[in-house]
Amino acid sequence: MERVSLKTIAKSLNISVSTVSRALNDSDEINFETKQKVQELAKSLNYQPNPYANSLRNLKSHTIAVVVPEIANNFFSLAIDGIDEIAQKNGYHMLIYLTRDSFLKEKAIISHLLGGRVDGVLMSVSSHEGDHKHLADLHKRNIPMVFFDKICDELDTPTVTSDDYESAFEATAHLLKKGCKKVALINTSQNLNIGKNRLLGYKNALKQYHLNYQEELVINCGNDNHQNYLDIKTLIGEAKPDGIFASVERIAISTYHACHDLKINIPADVKIISFSNLETAELLNPSLTTITQPAFDMGKKAAQLLFKSLKKDSSLGLPQFEKAVLSSVLIERDSTKTAV
Amino acid sequence: MERVSLKTIAKSLNISVSTVSRALNDSDEINFETKQKVQELAKSLNYQPNPYANSLRNLKSHTIAVVVPEIANNFFSLAIDGIDEIAQKNGYHMLIYLTRDSFLKEKAIISHLLGGRVDGVLMSVSSHEGDHKHLADLHKRNIPMVFFDKICDELDTPTVTSDDYESAFEATAHLLKKGCKKVALINTSQNLNIGKNRLLGYKNALKQYHLNYQEELVINCGNDNHQNYLDIKTLIGEAKPDGIFASVERIAISTYHACHDLKINIPADVKIISFSNLETAELLNPSLTTITQPAFDMGKKAAQLLFKSLKKDSSLGLPQFEKAVLSSVLIERDSTKTAV
Repeated sequence: MERVSLKTIAKSLNISVSTVSRALNDSDEINFETKQKVQELAKSLNYQPNPYANSLRNLKSHTIAVVVPEIANNFFSLAIDGIDEIAQKNGYHMLIYLTRDSFLKEKAIISHLLGGRVDGVLMSVSSHEGDHKHLADLHKRNIPMVFFDKICDELDTPTVTSDDYESAFEATAHLLKKGCKKVALINTSQNLNIGKNRLLGYKNALKQYHLNYQEELVINCGNDNHQNYLDIKTLIGEAKPDGIFASVERIAISTYHACHDLKINIPADVKIISFSNLETAELLNPSLTTITQPAFDMGKKAAQLLFKSLKKDSSLGLPQFEKAVLSSVLIERDSTKTAV
Repeated sequence: MERVSLKTIAKSLNISVSTVSRALNDSDEINFETKQKVQELAKSLNYQPNPYANSLRNLKSHTIAVVVPEIANNFFSLAIDGIDEIAQKNGYHMLIYLTRDSFLKEKAIISHLLGGRVDGVLMSVSSHEGDHKHLADLHKRNIPMVFFDKICDELDTPTVTSDDYESAFEATAHLLKKGCKKVALINTSQNLNIGKNRLLGYKNALKQYHLNYQEELVINCGNDNHQNYLDIKTLIGEAKPDGIFASVERIAISTYHACHDLKINIPADVKIISFSNLETAELLNPSLTTITQPAFDMGKKAAQLLFKSLKKDSSLGLPQFEKAVLSSVLIERDSTKTAV
């Protein structure tokens, strides 16, 4: 079956292509009967406007890009659900791009987006060690961007984060209140604010409880789950923490595996708290105490800010960029329980 | 910053736009020095070809659509990871569309794709009760399609599934071998083959063990997790099964919640097995016996079949469509353990 074009319709009705086009666009120059005839035929032939031709004319692709480090992760899948809800309401589709936390892949994706394939970009930055020149390039092209969770604060854009410093402080204080004396922090990369803020919250909670910061109790984990599992085993064996604060979900899972394999009892030997949106946190053995980020709402908010930018008339001068900070919730479960 | 166009480059070098275009396309008509000058300037200005203009010319968007019912689900996030790996290797990006198992949403998405925005479609069908006319429309447009996991077998396309009948037979037999006498099946919709095959495997395993099929032991669950939780509670209270075979991951999670709340011990009172790609299956209380689908490999295989179609010369006549069936694995854990 060939594509039904304006030409097909024009030929069938023996009128000009431009009449068909104007009839479909509900132009005042075309009379009611013609419009009706054209629109009915277009419908019955299942006519679809060519999106590229439309895009060239309107400079709108009605597509937004969502650039994230990973998708097999409850935080991002929930955030994407939130973004999708708002995109749908605005009649937009989303292109999801996975960077897998790689600098090269992130650069390639941004270079692709520089071509103008999308109207706006929602992004959670990779925690690589490279610079952010590629993001600055995209920003200069006036493609609206909103960063969420893992943000690039060198650029003047709206951002959506959760209260990482406060939550990390609270998580650490929770372990200390439960009687832990040696709390380890298993963090992600220090290349982004999110990692720095979580470290700072941890440090300041220790200070408030008159404990010294001990370097050997803090490690950074990457994306290789098996390597993380090995590093966590080493940490537990050497530094012997009685409390562990895991900064992301997959680190908590690796920590559980390490404790199970080392026959270390949670919470008797070591208490665990983690940033996590795990659906099964309550069903784990033992159930996991979490700092739960409002992932769905963060996605929603980020998308709302992006559509606000998309609708704004850029000729009105420099906009004020909103920096939204949403609160996480500490949910206490058995992994931080004290003995009775 | 304005977009760098062919014109920008032509003006800077004082040559024609068509020379620039041919130089960038490495045309034989242009001499080496000119090509080098043009290509170097294009690179230093970070020139990006206009994707819409390119698409109109080449009739290629270098984008594939991945249409799935949900994303906050380990099966689909892993399958998408597999698809992404192959898409990348072929220099393609993927547009992910979520149908949320809704007929109307699925129709709207397919109607959008009819416009030719993508070169090919990978799809897991929604389990709605509507017809599949919209999918047939897309198929007629000669846009290559591959269905995976939840397939539409009315259309002649490549498909990738797992061995649903065999796995369901094996899962049911596993519970019976562990001493269960009343095995319940909590399935998804019967509108798709996947649900029908799993039901058939369950029925035939009962038959082989000389047990009668009892209608009250089989329920179908939808997408509302809270409603599922309530339905499962009712099933457990009324039909009193001693074994439960959950046909998808989120049903297993709801079953765990129901058992915990009803103070029913797993596995002493009821043994549970589920189709699942849960990363935390091993860490649950108790650890969950699973039928694990090769989700990543299914995504990869589906993408490979799609690119095979994309590269095929359609003038060579009707292609043979591959129907790939990948094997799942039963992983025995504590949720089906017999008392010692």
